[in-house]
Amino acid sequence: MSDKNDLEKKCIDTIRFLAADAIEKAKSGHPGMPLGAAAAAFTLWTKHLKHNPQNPQWPDRDRFVLSAGHASMLLYSLLHLTGYNLTLDDIKNFRQWGSRTPGHPEYKHTPGVEVTTGPLGQGLANAVGMAIAEAHLAVRFNREGEKLIDHFTYVMVGDGDMMEGVAAEACSLAGHLRLGKLIVLYDDNRVTLAGSAALSCTENIEQRFKAYGWQVQKIADGNNVAAIDRTIKKAKRETEKPSLICVQSTIGFGAPCKQGSCEAHGSPLGADELKRTKESLCWLGDAPFYVSDDVYKFFRKALSRGKKYEKQWRETVNEYKQKYPASVAEFERIMRGDLPEKWESALSELPEGSKDVATRKASETVMQAIASKITEFAGGSADLNPSCFTWLKGLGDFQNPRLSKEGLHGMVGGPWNYTGRNIHFGIREHAMGSITVGMALHGGIIPYTATFLTFADYMRPPMRLAALMGLRVVFIFTHDSIGVGEDGPTHQPVEQIMNLRQVPNMTVIRPADANETLEAWRIAIKNTSGPTTLVFSRQNLPVLDRSIFSTASGVQHGGYILWESSPDPELILMATGSEVFLTLNAARKLSEQGIKVRLVSLPSWEIFDNQPQEYRNSVLPPAITARIAVEAGIKLGWEHYTGLKGEIIGMNSFGASAPGPMLYEKYGFTVEKIIAAAKKLLLSM
Amino acid sequence: MSDKNDLEKKCIDTIRFLAADAIEKAKSGHPGMPLGAAAAAFTLWTKHLKHNPQNPQWPDRDRFVLSAGHASMLLYSLLHLTGYNLTLDDIKNFRQWGSRTPGHPEYKHTPGVEVTTGPLGQGLANAVGMAIAEAHLAVRFNREGEKLIDHFTYVMVGDGDMMEGVAAEACSLAGHLRLGKLIVLYDDNRVTLAGSAALSCTENIEQRFKAYGWQVQKIADGNNVAAIDRTIKKAKRETEKPSLICVQSTIGFGAPCKQGSCEAHGSPLGADELKRTKESLCWLGDAPFYVSDDVYKFFRKALSRGKKYEKQWRETVNEYKQKYPASVAEFERIMRGDLPEKWESALSELPEGSKDVATRKASETVMQAIASKITEFAGGSADLNPSCFTWLKGLGDFQNPRLSKEGLHGMVGGPWNYTGRNIHFGIREHAMGSITVGMALHGGIIPYTATFLTFADYMRPPMRLAALMGLRVVFIFTHDSIGVGEDGPTHQPVEQIMNLRQVPNMTVIRPADANETLEAWRIAIKNTSGPTTLVFSRQNLPVLDRSIFSTASGVQHGGYILWESSPDPELILMATGSEVFLTLNAARKLSEQGIKVRLVSLPSWEIFDNQPQEYRNSVLPPAITARIAVEAGIKLGWEHYTGLKGEIIGMNSFGASAPGPMLYEKYGFTVEKIIAAAKKLLLSM
Repeated sequence: MSDKNDLEKKCIDTIRFLAADAIEKAKSGHPGMPLGAAAAAFTLWTKHLKHNPQNPQWPDRDRFVLSAGHASMLLYSLLHLTGYNLTLDDIKNFRQWGSRTPGHPEYKHTPGVEVTTGPLGQGLANAVGMAIAEAHLAVRFNREGEKLIDHFTYVMVGDGDMMEGVAAEACSLAGHLRLGKLIVLYDDNRVTLAGSAALSCTENIEQRFKAYGWQVQKIADGNNVAAIDRTIKKAKRETEKPSLICVQSTIGFGAPCKQGSCEAHGSPLGADELKRTKESLCWLGDAPFYVSDDVYKFFRKALSRGKKYEKQWRETVNEYKQKYPASVAEFERIMRGDLPEKWESALSELPEGSKDVATRKASETVMQAIASKITEFAGGSADLNPSCFTWLKGLGDFQNPRLSKEGLHGMVGGPWNYTGRNIHFGIREHAMGSITVGMALHGGIIPYTATFLTFADYMRPPMRLAALMGLRVVFIFTHDSIGVGEDGPTHQPVEQIMNLRQVPNMTVIRPADANETLEAWRIAIKNTSGPTTLVFSRQNLPVLDRSIFSTASGVQHGGYILWESSPDPELILMATGSEVFLTLNAARKLSEQGIKVRLVSLPSWEIFDNQPQEYRNSVLPPAITARIAVEAGIKLGWEHYTGLKGEIIGMNSFGASAPGPMLYEKYGFTVEKIIAAAKKLLLSM
Repeated sequence: MSDKNDLEKKCIDTIRFLAADAIEKAKSGHPGMPLGAAAAAFTLWTKHLKHNPQNPQWPDRDRFVLSAGHASMLLYSLLHLTGYNLTLDDIKNFRQWGSRTPGHPEYKHTPGVEVTTGPLGQGLANAVGMAIAEAHLAVRFNREGEKLIDHFTYVMVGDGDMMEGVAAEACSLAGHLRLGKLIVLYDDNRVTLAGSAALSCTENIEQRFKAYGWQVQKIADGNNVAAIDRTIKKAKRETEKPSLICVQSTIGFGAPCKQGSCEAHGSPLGADELKRTKESLCWLGDAPFYVSDDVYKFFRKALSRGKKYEKQWRETVNEYKQKYPASVAEFERIMRGDLPEKWESALSELPEGSKDVATRKASETVMQAIASKITEFAGGSADLNPSCFTWLKGLGDFQNPRLSKEGLHGMVGGPWNYTGRNIHFGIREHAMGSITVGMALHGGIIPYTATFLTFADYMRPPMRLAALMGLRVVFIFTHDSIGVGEDGPTHQPVEQIMNLRQVPNMTVIRPADANETLEAWRIAIKNTSGPTTLVFSRQNLPVLDRSIFSTASGVQHGGYILWESSPDPELILMATGSEVFLTLNAARKLSEQGIKVRLVSLPSWEIFDNQPQEYRNSVLPPAITARIAVEAGIKLGWEHYTGLKGEIIGMNSFGASAPGPMLYEKYGFTVEKIIAAAKKLLLSM
């Protein structure tokens, strides 16, 4: 073995044993993949990855996603060794309270971690979103010879990632879009937590990815650095297809009694087996967390390389700035996540007397205004643009330019290229969610998704991760209740609104009319610390006359007094969305009958609950316990505001197929029912 | 055109126009696929489908799943024409309140509808479950020459079904399992709701399915009955692979101005276009809902054919019965869904003084006992058997027998065949849910799934459908809180328990110890009207001494008084699962300090809320408003029991990576915190 190979082996084994030692110390973790995939990771990180450990936020860095998040120690080893702000002490604190090395990689938590991973398949789909963002920003900003953005997105995946449906959806779309700068290294070790992957999966993965339109390469020996290097080079040269590199490896490589078996997957090796592993790989003694100077020296070349990469890029930016100062300013602004000045000037309220309009339709109008000012606002639906009304008019389809030339069967539209701001996600809700998460992570885009509310169930994992990571993604859901009508119970959400209110850091807004819709959008765009779920009606709703009722800016407080017959009410009615107008009618009738009533519109519980106690008490005075909530969704949860003495008019069952107005009547959402409930409640007080 | 062909065309057009007329009358529906796929459906239903319209429940019928549920009128037309109990008036009432022809097909609602479909991809995955059930029951019951069960499972799918990740997962598994009697007709019309499918999907679907190990055939003309007939024949002959038949068709076929475009997909044609369509297909006049006598006569041959099919089968059963009476009795019992007598005798409580045990581990013991008595109890996990403890010991892996012979790389175990009652679903939670739904629909199996609770998010759509259809599926989720520990927030459920409580008809049970676990299983197995979600701890929990505390049979009431220091308490503490013992310790300390306290264990809200008011009031007397709830999950929802005056000790945020006990302390789940909250609460009263 040459000196070079000798050092390489030492570097690779250092990755392995930092991981195995940390897992051993924590008595918890997954050594299998760090041991098996160390050589592939080493090759990518030292020979290809364009990054600057001293500035992990540098916009044009290559993105690296460890989709198999359970192999977190593989990533932490690399981050430490290449010089990120992650010390050996951090490594030693793996999986402990407050450490920077949690069990799975966590975005914003550890320098150099691009994305929180762990739930399988997500990281791969996130990476597709990153590659989409890169492709879009590249055509938007790059000029001949001067590239503000020009990087690869690398992903390391395991068998689990490949089996998950979300990965199938995302990779099919990546192939369709011909995202040539997406490169996936598949740690093909054929072993999962429960045993051989072949117990449940014997598909031909290479053929499957070729069917998606990918370049596929295979490496028989996962420890062959030269071969891995060659395939990555080839993958980089392929600009018209995403690349999959199947790296056949041995899980738990080097552990004499556990390698190649699921025993190496998810538990520490144990002191004895770890010792044996070190011996079998001719490692340098027993001391844990050992890194030799020459290994540090080799890895830390990343620091000077990174500095150089970033310097070259900054020079390019400066040259570019001479010619296109506004473009650079715009690029820098969107990468920082700042909004353009005066963007809100585009938003205008609908005046009183406007025609009834579904909030999904009102949202369409608001979205056009936002898109005209906020150039980084982009997204799409899961094949439901004609129903969700989320198309950004005149702003093009996001497609690979070749689609225009090749004229695929039956397609109308175009011209197509990556400048388009409307993404056709296809009938792939789950990937849509995960891809937009990746777009938000990349930066430079404020992404949105759209589908029917009932299909929120298909995309819960990425919605949760967006909340956990605190990302600005706007999840639009229309057809938000039994108001859907004829499509029936499969298409009528019942539990979804309340479910989403229970996701930590998820802001849910269900506006009551066009003007509340506008306010909801204002909040969503300004919310930089987490995702916002916007919930819109299918059916038309009156535009409330704000000269009579409170201004819709009350949405900014989550809930507000829309109307009251007396400043000293005996009864509070609460409602959201399409039930607000209905409840308003009931309130007015109750008032005519001499009952002092207040109507509270409660579009966003999260925002309302974050208001000062004083404000909340002014809207819902604790002394007034005669409270009725009206929402065409599940009742359970509304006791949060009604308490046990109040009344909830809601759903306890699934819906049915019939025209929407009929369903409202059959399920008890009528003025009469509200009035009867109010009278009964007041009598019982 | 020959007379035969002439009549066939008339039959096919009758399907088309019954559908189009019904959609027109309802002013709502999806005409595109009924028009385009009528010939394929006609061929399958009149030349292949083994069914008996007069007995839709006959066990050995072929199963037919319309995965593209929006094409419901295609199915309703076929059901009516072939003589099911579905009248022309039912057809005319399409999508109306109380009709038997809802917007999407609904199981138990319409005779002959095998499964509720609409959310795309689900029906296809359900069909995989049906084919698994068939394969399992066939090897279990069939004897040489005498087959109790021997049928095909047919599915019609659209582009949307093919794009959904759940279909990818399920079809990969179907290929792995070599489910030769699964035949999928893909209505390959290349048009989706929003436009051309090629806007988002240009993958090579044939190649993809070949990669899964399927037989793939293609038909260029979707109206070519003879060609469709030939491919179905060939698919039936292929016994070692599932079959995909790509039937290239024209969406909205015959509608001169709309065919081939998304305008034909999801809205009525409109009176003019419908008239033009009838003209272009040389239809018999303008009268809606027209069925000629010869058409009825042709279709209704299904009645005599069906009678004959069933008669032959019953003869086989009778012959078989002579030799194996017990087997037939068993077959009939499991197909009825009845439990074996005295099955509960296998369940035995853990005595006081038993060693601490995680409820996931206690569940493992109970499952073995259940499996020993209930032969139809079968299921598996999404690659988490070693963690969820859901393996049925000694009952084999469900695998295609060839796997044993071919000796796939690295696999240990076997011998493998379809008698195995443990299914390796792979890392495919979504398909796992949908497949078990299909198994339950088929009958003869009581299926279960297992994964970590946080990954319930991956399988929400089939869980909802199981609830909507009222199916006995047991969804097992372990690792049910921050007690997961080091794996961190991605693996720690927070909102999932409360989310699932909000799904109508879903029974959620979170037992506190081994004996509550046993009771939870008893409920799950007996629950024939809907799914049960069982939520288990990762961490060990004490086995409560039932000589001191109430018996665990209280779980049957959903909630019960576990212990109280006085029959006249001033304070009620409530808890579920792993927080019960913690809260019990707090209750005892409070009692020592002279506070009269009651501890209520509340493992199942759905069951508790269904108890008589009197019982509920005896457990939670309305007069006692000093109530504290303790659960390591999201707080929102607990006001259902605590009201606004009570206190909730729960989560408002995601968890973190650290050892479980540390997290309990950091997030405030301690005896001290409960005691402090209790004192504060009592002071405020």
